[in-house]
Amino acid sequence: MTAERGFASDNYAGIHPDVLAAIAEVNVGHQPAYGDDSTTEQLRELIRQHFGAQAEVYPVFNGTGANVVALQAMARPWEAVVCAQSAHVNVDEGGAPEKVAGLKLWQIPTDDGRLTPELLDTQTWGYGDVHRAQPTVLSVTQSTELGTVYPVAQVTDLVTHAKKSGMRVHLDGARIANAAAALGVPLRALTTDIGVDALSFGGTKNGAMGAEAVVVLNPDAVPGVDYLRKSDMQLASKMRFISAQLVALLTDDLWLRNARHSNAMAARLYDAMTRIDGVTVVRPAQANSVFAILPADVTSRLQEQFRFYTWDPATGEVRWMCSWDTTESDIDTFATAVAKEMGVQQ
Amino acid sequence: MTAERGFASDNYAGIHPDVLAAIAEVNVGHQPAYGDDSTTEQLRELIRQHFGAQAEVYPVFNGTGANVVALQAMARPWEAVVCAQSAHVNVDEGGAPEKVAGLKLWQIPTDDGRLTPELLDTQTWGYGDVHRAQPTVLSVTQSTELGTVYPVAQVTDLVTHAKKSGMRVHLDGARIANAAAALGVPLRALTTDIGVDALSFGGTKNGAMGAEAVVVLNPDAVPGVDYLRKSDMQLASKMRFISAQLVALLTDDLWLRNARHSNAMAARLYDAMTRIDGVTVVRPAQANSVFAILPADVTSRLQEQFRFYTWDPATGEVRWMCSWDTTESDIDTFATAVAKEMGVQQ
Amino acid sequence: MTAERGFASDNYAGIHPDVLAAIAEVNVGHQPAYGDDSTTEQLRELIRQHFGAQAEVYPVFNGTGANVVALQAMARPWEAVVCAQSAHVNVDEGGAPEKVAGLKLWQIPTDDGRLTPELLDTQTWGYGDVHRAQPTVLSVTQSTELGTVYPVAQVTDLVTHAKKSGMRVHLDGARIANAAAALGVPLRALTTDIGVDALSFGGTKNGAMGAEAVVVLNPDAVPGVDYLRKSDMQLASKMRFISAQLVALLTDDLWLRNARHSNAMAARLYDAMTRIDGVTVVRPAQANSVFAILPADVTSRLQEQFRFYTWDPATGEVRWMCSWDTTESDIDTFATAVAKEMGVQQ
Amino acid sequence: MTAERGFASDNYAGIHPDVLAAIAEVNVGHQPAYGDDSTTEQLRELIRQHFGAQAEVYPVFNGTGANVVALQAMARPWEAVVCAQSAHVNVDEGGAPEKVAGLKLWQIPTDDGRLTPELLDTQTWGYGDVHRAQPTVLSVTQSTELGTVYPVAQVTDLVTHAKKSGMRVHLDGARIANAAAALGVPLRALTTDIGVDALSFGGTKNGAMGAEAVVVLNPDAVPGVDYLRKSDMQLASKMRFISAQLVALLTDDLWLRNARHSNAMAARLYDAMTRIDGVTVVRPAQANSVFAILPADVTSRLQEQFRFYTWDPATGEVRWMCSWDTTESDIDTFATAVAKEMGVQQ
Repeated sequence: MTAERGFASDNYAGIHPDVLAAIAEVNVGHQPAYGDDSTTEQLRELIRQHFGAQAEVYPVFNGTGANVVALQAMARPWEAVVCAQSAHVNVDEGGAPEKVAGLKLWQIPTDDGRLTPELLDTQTWGYGDVHRAQPTVLSVTQSTELGTVYPVAQVTDLVTHAKKSGMRVHLDGARIANAAAALGVPLRALTTDIGVDALSFGGTKNGAMGAEAVVVLNPDAVPGVDYLRKSDMQLASKMRFISAQLVALLTDDLWLRNARHSNAMAARLYDAMTRIDGVTVVRPAQANSVFAILPADVTSRLQEQFRFYTWDPATGEVRWMCSWDTTESDIDTFATAVAKEMGVQQ
Repeated sequence: MTAERGFASDNYAGIHPDVLAAIAEVNVGHQPAYGDDSTTEQLRELIRQHFGAQAEVYPVFNGTGANVVALQAMARPWEAVVCAQSAHVNVDEGGAPEKVAGLKLWQIPTDDGRLTPELLDTQTWGYGDVHRAQPTVLSVTQSTELGTVYPVAQVTDLVTHAKKSGMRVHLDGARIANAAAALGVPLRALTTDIGVDALSFGGTKNGAMGAEAVVVLNPDAVPGVDYLRKSDMQLASKMRFISAQLVALLTDDLWLRNARHSNAMAARLYDAMTRIDGVTVVRPAQANSVFAILPADVTSRLQEQFRFYTWDPATGEVRWMCSWDTTESDIDTFATAVAKEMGVQQ
Repeated sequence: MTAERGFASDNYAGIHPDVLAAIAEVNVGHQPAYGDDSTTEQLRELIRQHFGAQAEVYPVFNGTGANVVALQAMARPWEAVVCAQSAHVNVDEGGAPEKVAGLKLWQIPTDDGRLTPELLDTQTWGYGDVHRAQPTVLSVTQSTELGTVYPVAQVTDLVTHAKKSGMRVHLDGARIANAAAALGVPLRALTTDIGVDALSFGGTKNGAMGAEAVVVLNPDAVPGVDYLRKSDMQLASKMRFISAQLVALLTDDLWLRNARHSNAMAARLYDAMTRIDGVTVVRPAQANSVFAILPADVTSRLQEQFRFYTWDPATGEVRWMCSWDTTESDIDTFATAVAKEMGVQQ
Repeated sequence: MTAERGFASDNYAGIHPDVLAAIAEVNVGHQPAYGDDSTTEQLRELIRQHFGAQAEVYPVFNGTGANVVALQAMARPWEAVVCAQSAHVNVDEGGAPEKVAGLKLWQIPTDDGRLTPELLDTQTWGYGDVHRAQPTVLSVTQSTELGTVYPVAQVTDLVTHAKKSGMRVHLDGARIANAAAALGVPLRALTTDIGVDALSFGGTKNGAMGAEAVVVLNPDAVPGVDYLRKSDMQLASKMRFISAQLVALLTDDLWLRNARHSNAMAARLYDAMTRIDGVTVVRPAQANSVFAILPADVTSRLQEQFRFYTWDPATGEVRWMCSWDTTESDIDTFATAVAKEMGVQQ
């Protein structure tokens, strides 16, 4: 029988107790709907502390919503978004960017989910040619879908290069907390300080119940978010309960503690796996996931015991995600099971 | 200073304690995301009990999302929706039906938010004419945006008439609980039993934190909801916490108790207002709202003390909404204030 | 048997010989595609002569295309268009504005297709309210779908009023030639001179084979037309042949001669009909159409002989359109037939 | 100075005299608009002769329109299209598939524009997974954007393979005439006979003024084309003049003669170029284009004399298109110029 706990996704975990407590705490009396409440006001102040005085926050329901609202605000109807082929907006949102916002995505194959200035150049051309949906917005994912993290210098180079072409830059930060934790830098070092115009700020995978936000860092480049959030169906009526979750994460560094923990668990898992003969760990575990290649029959037997996804059936690559509530014991139990199924003495 | 409590909207109220407890209760360990969890399975069973064995439930984030997902599933890309001019989909969703789903809305003016077969006939024509977006889907709101309730016979006639034209029928039930409570009938008497194909089932305004659902009653007429919920950005990752709210509402008749209470408060407010000289109550209070015409200066002074909306600046009509947590004391305090501002002895 | 010639629509007529000759004349050798040809350059010059030095012309395929490209350029994704309920964009384009461009249309009932400042005020509210698709663009039709013409002072008042609300103004000029001819004014008196920002300029109904254009009068208010024309699928590759048609119409006042002629034929038809007992002519024939109420059986018998449309089955109102090639004999033959079917001595 | 004649595109050519004559011939009297005319009826009969009794034809304005109307009819709102990365729908339509129809395009890199069953398999997965826009429609281009032609057996294998996955198949036949001419087969051998469900049939690049059509071969798989043609703004009012062009092309094999001619001219150009030292012809000239790599300075000097496009600035690859009116003298003059600029004795 499959164990309840596993490594399928960081959204299989529940709500961090502090986040749930924060929801309960603001559940008192009446508050104006749609963001005119005192909790959302408190969130605005916290966001300014983290991202600078010009930052504006728009809580939304989920990551797809944050991405599409931000990108639609940044791209005029005849423009297009450039992103890595592996980006969540491209492969995992059911076509929402195209279907909801009519966005063309110019896609760039990468080795490990990370773009470079050279890779970006392969799509940033054709300006002024009406036959080419104009590539004016760059969407960067940090940490990436493939578990990698752009070092500060690398993402700075990329953003700077895009800006030189006149592009606006969006950062898909569904897991920005894991990136900041991995790099040991504040959130603004990955966003405001390097010229990012808008951020999808993730809470759900990092201990919230369901709370993400569009954070606008350069209002001139990202017009209409308040309206688009509504017409894109991402405006919560009882918003105080979304905002309270984000407030909780941004208070006493809960976001950072959760991210450090899940990163540390991934590092522990990485270490364990590299010690098992026959398991090929594909990439360094820079954030909270580990990708490895296993024999198909081993994967199959393990998936009867633990939940996790096969990432690429062609190669046998699997993905293991750690979350804020993964324990050392979870890791050790799993590592033992892998070793056993691989027929290896640990 | 404006009092915290007021009559602006039923979404100014918080979370009913039983709903919050249900969220906390399912916050244990890991659960598969996106609806493959045991709480959502429990919700499916409850929905079948309420709406019949064929009913399928798709939890979503908000009412606009429920409406657009359902309507997009029901209308092929060249079709259109017929609704009352006052319908929420037409006037209060920032154009989401048009912008997200490309839906043309054929709008019908009504006296009190309720359509009739005769009114419907004014838009159900032009079938086969490619110049006319084909009017094949009817969206009915129950209870209406104007606080009225269709009696069972009346909504049955309307739905039957639409079906004779080959239309599919959607019911916007953001406040269906209030309608069922007012009419003293089970939910299925307003939906499954009369031939409604899909329902937007509301929880948020009735004590939830943020939980609505598309309930498909006739799957053949409403294809693709599972995919559209994702591409319309309404698929919650940690869905157990949305489902738990709906489970709580559908357990021990909490939905009914909450709706009865808010209806009763509106009735109390109605009674009080009809006794104040100079206040013209516009429509009977059939659900949880009261609409009345006040002198502009009185409205202005009252809005400094209590939150509520002016509905029509031209006539001076205002709207007062009651919620699951409105108290008799709230009503009495407010009635006293209105009387005082009207210069009337109570 | 139905006669070939009739009064169904001005697009049942063919191509004016001068327009066809112009197509043949430019059919020499190679020319750059997509508008970089010398004929389109000639058109640009003619448009500037008619509409002022700042005017930019973008030939397109049809009137729906002109309207949607212009309106999408004028309305940002969260904005909406205000128009008469009877406007072509609302009732006769298969939902293209909603489906292609996500445009919400705020519709205003009118008596005769003409808006007034007072009527406009019924929809120009809710600015800043995210729940209301922002009504920032006005679309005026001149001459209207109901055969009426706004006098210069009247349309000036309307446009001026809209501008005071900060609106951008579009003019659907599928039949602007008929309006200008009726009023005896140049095209710019109905557009540039009164502050219209963009015009859909019609050629097809006025003697072309198929040629319309978006004419941008205020480029700052109408960005991106070159790109939107392409992504809205209205960019002709062999554009010289579209441009040649418009050049022909704008040369030696062909547009005006054709429009005067069809207007005159409508006037003749109007006169004839007002003299037949039992035929109620509904509105003055200000442009090239006549609307009248006939007994249903008479309409029925006439439609076996002549093509024309029943406009409103409820009232028995029919529409008769005259075109650039309608002859006096067409009118007289038809009038005789109507008189005969009405049982009237002429 | 740039010569008027060149090799930039087959849409730089004008109208074939027989096509222009056909337009003139139907310019007599009144005809019903929107396709209810006798010329369009004649076209329907011709299309049935070429494509089988079940074939339905819907004339449209341009190739982008044909592609988007067909693909939108074939893909439900939650579905996606699989195509070669080099396909016109992906790279050259300004994002129209995404922007007008919300279509996600799953793109496959190819060597020469041609897909294979193995390549198709790289994108046909994830059925039932709501996070993946469902890849249910295949769009094949014949002849391809890169000047290659699928042999009958190869395209049959591809279509058969797609059908096994339950896909519907669209063929972008903007240049299907060139493919059929190259292969020496009738049009139905590349479409109806191998199971293609819908075809974009091109006329403009093959001697028409502006005439393309959606040809539905399997009506069950392609619903709603009549409505979508209207709402996608591709419905011509005076349709007889579009249909007359297609009728002319399908009469006395004009389509075939034109295509054979442009193919032959490309073959002559290919031969000439392969004899010039230093010119690397990239691919065989299977249809009406030749791709070659030239030194950048030579390209530059040639483009001052003749119009043609640089296809890939990185490699120096250029494209030369031949059209129905390219002459042997055009080819010889150009070949002499290339040889001269390359410094080669011919």
